[in-house]
Amino acid sequence: MGTIVVGYVPKPEGKAALRRAVEEARLRKLRLVVVNSHRGGREFDRDDALESETQLDEVKAELDGVGIEHEVRQLVRGFDPAEDLVDVAKEVSAELIVIGLRRRSPVGKLILGSNAQRVLLDASCPVLAVKAEE
Amino acid sequence: MGTIVVGYVPKPEGKAALRRAVEEARLRKLRLVVVNSHRGGREFDRDDALESETQLDEVKAELDGVGIEHEVRQLVRGFDPAEDLVDVAKEVSAELIVIGLRRRSPVGKLILGSNAQRVLLDASCPVLAVKAEE
Repeated sequence: MGTIVVGYVPKPEGKAALRRAVEEARLRKLRLVVVNSHRGGREFDRDDALESETQLDEVKAELDGVGIEHEVRQLVRGFDPAEDLVDVAKEVSAELIVIGLRRRSPVGKLILGSNAQRVLLDASCPVLAVKAEE
Repeated sequence: MGTIVVGYVPKPEGKAALRRAVEEARLRKLRLVVVNSHRGGREFDRDDALESETQLDEVKAELDGVGIEHEVRQLVRGFDPAEDLVDVAKEVSAELIVIGLRRRSPVGKLILGSNAQRVLLDASCPVLAVKAEE
């Protein structure tokens, strides 16, 4: 059974990515691996860890409800989220990676985040980029 | 019937994008709009135009063969390919845009092309980015 890997953060763009990844998993009959990655270190304290776990528990509950084979991985090992995402995709021989992008702001020019660029460049499988709903 | 818009250039990354767009159109039961865009101007002379037409004729013949409803648009109106692609996607209310990316070279750091970045940022629908085969 093939795999879709999705980068998840508890933000509108992360939720949009997860929603779309579920749709794609259903359409393509693939299983889902949700990757939530933190660099860790000083800025990531106990409260952050607890908050992050609560959010991931919600994700798990949601995925249990939709009946798609899935796995949730939380990685805190000092890597950039892009590195972790591409690594996991390679490990599971992902057929597709789904990432969320922030919407371009009405004012000012937005450039593509370095994590998104890195995933797009480094992934060996196709990458589906979705935006948060307006 | 929904629409997939694909950016086509007669290069490995353009061919990979077209191939994938055909697969997606089949999977999602959507029609396909192929956009081939040139800025035009002095650098785009009569020979270029003829060569470009021959290549697009090949694309049309290929698409006729696979039995997917399609349309091929060649745009030479002074715009960047990204602008044309996003414009057409908006006009046809595309459900998906497919673009091709060059592979990261083994040496040196490659940054994401400005056209790809622009499509990813400006498109209001999801963007599927595929790489040329190795």
